[in-house]
Amino acid sequence: MASSITAVRGALVFFIDDPFLTDPHQAFVHEPDGLVICRDGLIMAAGPAARLASQLPDGVVPVHYPNCLISPGFIDTHIHYVQTEIIGAYGKQLLDWLNDTTFVAEQAFAEESHAKRIANLFCDELLRNGTTAAMVLCAVYPQSVDALFAEAERRNMRLIAGKVLMDRNAPPTLTDTARDGYDQSKALIAKWHGRGRNLYAITPRFAGSSTPEQLELAGALWNEHPGVFVQSHIAESRDEVAWIRKLYPDRTDYLDVYDHFGLVGRRAVYAHGIHLSEREFVRCHDSGTALAHCPTSNLFLGSGLFRIGAAKDRRRPVHVGIGTDIGAGTSFSALATLSEAYKVAQLNGRPLSALEGFFLATLGGARALALDDRLGSLQVGREADLVVLDPHATPLLQLRAERAQSIEDLLFVLMTLGDDRAVRATYVAGELAHLRKRPEPS
Amino acid sequence: MASSITAVRGALVFFIDDPFLTDPHQAFVHEPDGLVICRDGLIMAAGPAARLASQLPDGVVPVHYPNCLISPGFIDTHIHYVQTEIIGAYGKQLLDWLNDTTFVAEQAFAEESHAKRIANLFCDELLRNGTTAAMVLCAVYPQSVDALFAEAERRNMRLIAGKVLMDRNAPPTLTDTARDGYDQSKALIAKWHGRGRNLYAITPRFAGSSTPEQLELAGALWNEHPGVFVQSHIAESRDEVAWIRKLYPDRTDYLDVYDHFGLVGRRAVYAHGIHLSEREFVRCHDSGTALAHCPTSNLFLGSGLFRIGAAKDRRRPVHVGIGTDIGAGTSFSALATLSEAYKVAQLNGRPLSALEGFFLATLGGARALALDDRLGSLQVGREADLVVLDPHATPLLQLRAERAQSIEDLLFVLMTLGDDRAVRATYVAGELAHLRKRPEPS
Repeated sequence: MASSITAVRGALVFFIDDPFLTDPHQAFVHEPDGLVICRDGLIMAAGPAARLASQLPDGVVPVHYPNCLISPGFIDTHIHYVQTEIIGAYGKQLLDWLNDTTFVAEQAFAEESHAKRIANLFCDELLRNGTTAAMVLCAVYPQSVDALFAEAERRNMRLIAGKVLMDRNAPPTLTDTARDGYDQSKALIAKWHGRGRNLYAITPRFAGSSTPEQLELAGALWNEHPGVFVQSHIAESRDEVAWIRKLYPDRTDYLDVYDHFGLVGRRAVYAHGIHLSEREFVRCHDSGTALAHCPTSNLFLGSGLFRIGAAKDRRRPVHVGIGTDIGAGTSFSALATLSEAYKVAQLNGRPLSALEGFFLATLGGARALALDDRLGSLQVGREADLVVLDPHATPLLQLRAERAQSIEDLLFVLMTLGDDRAVRATYVAGELAHLRKRPEPS
Repeated sequence: MASSITAVRGALVFFIDDPFLTDPHQAFVHEPDGLVICRDGLIMAAGPAARLASQLPDGVVPVHYPNCLISPGFIDTHIHYVQTEIIGAYGKQLLDWLNDTTFVAEQAFAEESHAKRIANLFCDELLRNGTTAAMVLCAVYPQSVDALFAEAERRNMRLIAGKVLMDRNAPPTLTDTARDGYDQSKALIAKWHGRGRNLYAITPRFAGSSTPEQLELAGALWNEHPGVFVQSHIAESRDEVAWIRKLYPDRTDYLDVYDHFGLVGRRAVYAHGIHLSEREFVRCHDSGTALAHCPTSNLFLGSGLFRIGAAKDRRRPVHVGIGTDIGAGTSFSALATLSEAYKVAQLNGRPLSALEGFFLATLGGARALALDDRLGSLQVGREADLVVLDPHATPLLQLRAERAQSIEDLLFVLMTLGDDRAVRATYVAGELAHLRKRPEPS
């Protein structure tokens, strides 16, 4: 079989290490006039265009994106596709929002046609925003997972997703049982994990909506399938933390609930982690458990301010990715999410640099998912998921980008002022998956 | 002279009173199929299209914006046009940001051609975002004021602006003297106040950058010209508040500094007010002094969380408008600013409703500026500044707008997900001033 080769040209920006932990300029690669050559979905070469042009096979003409930046595709480590339609629902804090808004919307996903339609829109919206990999919560219904994975497979996207496990404190139509949840998850793993680029995540919604029996079976299931993932929520709001303490009086703290049931470790990703103790950060570090920082959601629900500095403390750094957390989050855009992450960090008195931000959205996310051998960088052999960023996409971006004093400044402008319009193109496994047709009119 | 008549048709949304202080539904008017007829720059009639169509003179065909909302143009009560180019500058909190970033950028405005070019871009960007009136800080140089007012006059926009007074704690090239500042301001008032729709604001930057002598002369100038405005900053960051206390040890608090020099009262607008005491809120209320809430800026600089609930306490409500506070603010969009105002309010545990938000951006802003007899509503006789909002401007807006359950929900969606793309058209004094040419591609 002939191999499929594509190439794109522009400035390259990517990470090879963690700027929170090492000299950021050693961790970061910037090639002002670069070329990425993709073969059969993987990166065959990436570097200076002048040097790599000779490696292009006859007949392969690189697509040139002048004045654009080519980055690894964004990685969203926490998003609910079944909440796409309730983005921007007014006025609630976490627990009320779950009961009054989320649980109502998710019931519609028992209907397969509805699930398909939203899964389709959802995948398109990810690609419009340059997001090529995501860790996604579905609804309690297995068919909601089927719908999403089918759409991801059709686009060859790298999604990690799972059926929500929820056997208490939710409407009866939205709950499973510990046993059914286990059986359904197991069947979904057999059906989808490793099919195309899909990967499965065991998905207890959170300790408040699963009984100890369900968490125990979730831990057993992970033990039986160590290659799959775990995703859930932790320490998002103070009320929730207090409630979990009451539900599990024998556990040391919130993380210890999950730990007790064998649900911490590498490939486990917990969203939020706003109100974690030092002990919990240490335990995340020791176990390789990752956190998904979801700033637009945390601000929208008034949940609190994630402490990125504490999470990434060099003495015991925790893996952190960013999550849009649609539908409590307010944007599908990784750029907009980084803008809010910066604001949260500023309120904590510790700014987030552009290099730190772009790391979180790319290689940092890949490390949080333990997929950094495949995703998040432009190193040879990685999967060729790319986003092409246009720093001139709007009049204001253009004005500011023209005055950028360094590549860091330009990246900071993109994360502060950018949105889906700044995504010129998205490539999935080396193939064009989204192209913004025209520049912004007027 | 023949009168100039234009008419626009769509859903009307506007306020006739303050939803913080009265029943929001009594304060708000929603006409699902409305018509606004403008004559000679003023609103001649606004109401149900079916009823008003007969009032249209022969030959006047209303411009129809189906599925759009027609609102009074947005009012930005605090913005620095001379900081347009430094939007999204990394990493500083207030006092460092002033010294390292702002003061550098503002020096370029000594050059008239630079001032003209940025003033032109700035006015266009306001209109692209549906903002038809703004209170604007210029640089210390009188020519920076001339440039802005000239561009505003050319567009017939309602701008209130002034030359910054700053005679200490800034680079020598950016300072005036108490006497020069007085003289220059006085000359600018004579030249511009009331010319076209321009109005003048006496503009001591803040108590830290003006000597007592300068504040005293500013107060004297206001006393001589009671019809002009005053704009400045107050209680933005804790460091700044502590510094002002040291600079003015004899004053009770920050507001008392301005009060002492005769700079509080109706038509005085102070930006931020994050760290105000109860005494200061009461004094604002008693004197009619207004506050400009600038959430994107406050988050970007990590300054703190403005307490809208405290400011609008019914026992002693303070006039509040919203400000984008470009260039510390991160968006020219009133919608994006309301989205952040909501998030700030949520972190304070008191959500901001959509009606409250749209009030702040329209009639609330007009009241803060003491211009509610002319701006901020669609009542007959008001100035015909309009913004036409398109709740279907992006795929995500469209998805969510289709599911909106009420006009409040639709407005909330616009303030949460909207940006300049949601501005279909802007009318200034009855004339089309901006039209978004095409719907968002792809």
